[in-house]
Amino acid sequence: MRLSNLPLNTFKEKPAEAEISSHQLMLRAGLIRPLASGLFTWMPMGLKVLRKVEKIVRMAMNEAGAFEILMPAIQPAELWQESERWGLYGPLLLKMRDRNDREFCFGPTHEEVMTDIARRELKSYKQLPVTYYQIQTKFRDEIRPRFGVMRAREFLMKDAYSFHLDQESLQETYDLMAHTYQKIFDSLGLQSKSVDADSGEIGGNKSREFHILANSGEDKIAYTDEDDFAINVELAPVSPQKQKESKEIHNLEKISTPEIKSIEEICEKLKISPKDTLKTLVVEGEDESLIALVLRGDHVLNRHKAEKINGISKPLSLASEEKIENAFELKPGSLGPLGLNARIIADHSAICCKNFVCGANETGFHYKGVNWEIDLPKPEAADLRDINEDDKSPDGNKIKIARGIEVGHIFQLGEKYSTAMNANVLNQAGKEQNLLMGCYGIGISRIVAAAIEQNYDEKGICWPNAIAPFELVLISINAKKSKEVISVTNKLYSDLTNSGIEVLYDDREVRPGVKFADAELLGVPHQVLIGDRTLSKGIAEYRKRGEKDFQEYKLGDIRSHISQILEMNRNVSPR
Amino acid sequence: MRLSNLPLNTFKEKPAEAEISSHQLMLRAGLIRPLASGLFTWMPMGLKVLRKVEKIVRMAMNEAGAFEILMPAIQPAELWQESERWGLYGPLLLKMRDRNDREFCFGPTHEEVMTDIARRELKSYKQLPVTYYQIQTKFRDEIRPRFGVMRAREFLMKDAYSFHLDQESLQETYDLMAHTYQKIFDSLGLQSKSVDADSGEIGGNKSREFHILANSGEDKIAYTDEDDFAINVELAPVSPQKQKESKEIHNLEKISTPEIKSIEEICEKLKISPKDTLKTLVVEGEDESLIALVLRGDHVLNRHKAEKINGISKPLSLASEEKIENAFELKPGSLGPLGLNARIIADHSAICCKNFVCGANETGFHYKGVNWEIDLPKPEAADLRDINEDDKSPDGNKIKIARGIEVGHIFQLGEKYSTAMNANVLNQAGKEQNLLMGCYGIGISRIVAAAIEQNYDEKGICWPNAIAPFELVLISINAKKSKEVISVTNKLYSDLTNSGIEVLYDDREVRPGVKFADAELLGVPHQVLIGDRTLSKGIAEYRKRGEKDFQEYKLGDIRSHISQILEMNRNVSPR
Repeated sequence: MRLSNLPLNTFKEKPAEAEISSHQLMLRAGLIRPLASGLFTWMPMGLKVLRKVEKIVRMAMNEAGAFEILMPAIQPAELWQESERWGLYGPLLLKMRDRNDREFCFGPTHEEVMTDIARRELKSYKQLPVTYYQIQTKFRDEIRPRFGVMRAREFLMKDAYSFHLDQESLQETYDLMAHTYQKIFDSLGLQSKSVDADSGEIGGNKSREFHILANSGEDKIAYTDEDDFAINVELAPVSPQKQKESKEIHNLEKISTPEIKSIEEICEKLKISPKDTLKTLVVEGEDESLIALVLRGDHVLNRHKAEKINGISKPLSLASEEKIENAFELKPGSLGPLGLNARIIADHSAICCKNFVCGANETGFHYKGVNWEIDLPKPEAADLRDINEDDKSPDGNKIKIARGIEVGHIFQLGEKYSTAMNANVLNQAGKEQNLLMGCYGIGISRIVAAAIEQNYDEKGICWPNAIAPFELVLISINAKKSKEVISVTNKLYSDLTNSGIEVLYDDREVRPGVKFADAELLGVPHQVLIGDRTLSKGIAEYRKRGEKDFQEYKLGDIRSHISQILEMNRNVSPR
Repeated sequence: MRLSNLPLNTFKEKPAEAEISSHQLMLRAGLIRPLASGLFTWMPMGLKVLRKVEKIVRMAMNEAGAFEILMPAIQPAELWQESERWGLYGPLLLKMRDRNDREFCFGPTHEEVMTDIARRELKSYKQLPVTYYQIQTKFRDEIRPRFGVMRAREFLMKDAYSFHLDQESLQETYDLMAHTYQKIFDSLGLQSKSVDADSGEIGGNKSREFHILANSGEDKIAYTDEDDFAINVELAPVSPQKQKESKEIHNLEKISTPEIKSIEEICEKLKISPKDTLKTLVVEGEDESLIALVLRGDHVLNRHKAEKINGISKPLSLASEEKIENAFELKPGSLGPLGLNARIIADHSAICCKNFVCGANETGFHYKGVNWEIDLPKPEAADLRDINEDDKSPDGNKIKIARGIEVGHIFQLGEKYSTAMNANVLNQAGKEQNLLMGCYGIGISRIVAAAIEQNYDEKGICWPNAIAPFELVLISINAKKSKEVISVTNKLYSDLTNSGIEVLYDDREVRPGVKFADAELLGVPHQVLIGDRTLSKGIAEYRKRGEKDFQEYKLGDIRSHISQILEMNRNVSPR
């Protein structure tokens, strides 16, 4: 593509409305333009990337034997009423009435439509297993659309659905999809991790998330390099960390701490580590009681785990300072498990602590040298905290924590929808049997943003080769002054294009600085430069996106050099 | 694709809900499945066709230098209020409110969004001309969705928009698009015709429709083989046909016709041709008056032309029998221009008639031997009728009439949207100047149905090679009985597939008759048969879709034969 033909508007300034790097860069590079809150137009360069992602996903799904279909975006309310999600899905569902006053929604997902097709098309176990997928525009009326296409309201998604007679077959396709997803992210040139995950509102039994790793990711992932352990921190089970057995038992001592307001302050005052302290968090119970959760000072409460404990209100709600004062006649900073008149649940690691420091349940006082079973009874124990890098996997390997952006999710839905919507087939015995169902989603448009979050620098985007809008940018310098620059660059452009390379030819009449800045911002992986000064010496220049300096090549050699480099890069996997 | 993997449900019976052949065949062959009124799921075989059409359109648009983008399906009301179409578009527009009670619609077209992008992105004449396009799902809440995907509510469309500084540039892109469209239909392997057309509700000056020819088409097209004349019959201007000058003048005579109710009956009674009669149709005037339109008995009133005449109410409305009786005290069958107390407008051809027969404005009587300027004054004259095959083009060539299905429409919108939405650029003189705009649509999903309307027989669909779901269907016969059939067919399947041929391998364990019927119904252009009996003689069989008999080939020769035939067919243009 000749850039002079495309009205490309790039800008240097960070757009005020964009919080995260990918959103900023996509706007700055002209990949997307906002239409309304959570609605974006994909401009030519952005759409090229989106289509490449789409193509890689499609190829992998076809290879896995899935059949592509295309369901309507607009879905009748009746199906959602059958599955009972019409009400449950809440205001995320964009609803509307047609000219005959019938209710519809813009599909945020297609389990209902798919199950409706399955119950009409699938009659016999002989037709199973089968996997259908589509790549299609979806809409979720997010309460707070943000981060550009990362959390847009209208977005492009690949959603697949599989149908089975038995769990073994469902598991087989589920495993195949997990494998296919891994292949997709590898083909995209992106570092990814898959983790065990909560199935969220879609329901069912088993699910796995796929994350593109990026420091800005909203999700935290716990994994090890040595074994298969990989799980969203929200869900990661923690094995208790024992303190050294040899520790001698101290005597309980009450100390005056009128000035202490935090774990950090008490540690500094007593020259101890947060590991030697316990903190007490009071949360609301279901029956208006208050419940005390006790964790080691350096640990983080895991809301998901706490919510699963009987008696604790869902969603988890920390008690207000006022409620705590009314109930216990003290400031929250002085709370502790010793002598507190409430149900107490302690994290396993907290129960392993010896000689610990905690609040004395008297404003302005702490205890030190506290020991379970000596100074106070062992309380109810539970896994209450986030896993961290001090922990070990069940197989004893060192935990690592990474941040990720969720771009894929696979579920074993089981009979949830087939029961609700009466989708069954005749089994080998000639009897009706409910279908088992799996569903498998990938956020195509979200991947584009996530790829940028993983691959950018201070100058702009650094696309992986597989999804770059162009493989190579060809920059002419001072073409206006030199007919030779024009003719050489034109020829190189048509030669490279004819040999199947996707070339962005920056033939605009703008300053070299503008061309360089746009090339870096747009993130095309390879740059070739034809300038009047070097050309007079028979020299063309090349650099990879991210490299500081251009390397000189004889004009006659540049084509074969480029072909070689691109060939090499096409075959490189991200790991 | 191995057909045994795909749960394909075909059926022999015409589905009751489908009125036209393409709808029937698409349902019977399992290409689509209905979800709700005007909403369809594209099943695997159907989607393959849709994607091929999409790809051919995309390639042609790219070749024409248009830039692909993707605008949101959901559009904010504000833009439609700016263009004043929010109300004008009527109930075709599917409207909705989001969680914040802001109004949106599901885009039936994207002039507003595109103009909004243009006014932000285009600042200078230097960026012009530019053409953007998208291939995207649209929604029109049709009052009577029918004919399957031919007139669905949700449909896939390619819509392009071009921007220009002057009319010359607009005309150039408009011509390029007309040329591109012609290329697209040729590449699709479809017979098409482009015609001058009314611009309908989109507004603007100049427009051209593209029709796929089919006997079932809703539109009538007038064209000649000798010149460029090609126009929708709705709009085709008619040159008056003169009767022979030599005809002698008869005397006026009133005849009793109590039993006559139609033109046919009077012609039979008097042994004359409908060309020798005039009929008088009474329509409503704008001021509650009645207006008489007089046409030759064999001609058809053209509503479009009549509506354009001052004083006639729009839309055109024929007066009821009751109104006619009240106004003229006679039955409509006895109406005639002689002595009728009303404004009379006669079609040019009616004014050329001599010695004609017409109603006598007295119930049960007609006149014969009526002549203008002798028996009654020449009335107001106008072009009121449909052109027909007796007419000539302005260059004097014989008119032909064909039926077509409108699948493309290009418009010169001029400044309509840029004025309403204030979209301008700086011109060479540094002054703000309104953009000129063109828009260019193709109904991608409609093309699939139209292609079938043009290409089917009593057994099923006859796809053109370019858009067939598969190029070839490979049928194994009695594979269960013969291991050799299995191994030979498997090998042939993988050989053909590896050489890049799209093969549908019917490896199902069903009766040969079922395989043949499905192959014909699905319309795959080429069939290869491997059966146990012929295989024992080293023979494979081939036939083209539509041919009655298979031809025998040596097994060793079949591959090269197929390659040759496919190669030939790939290069065949439809005309």
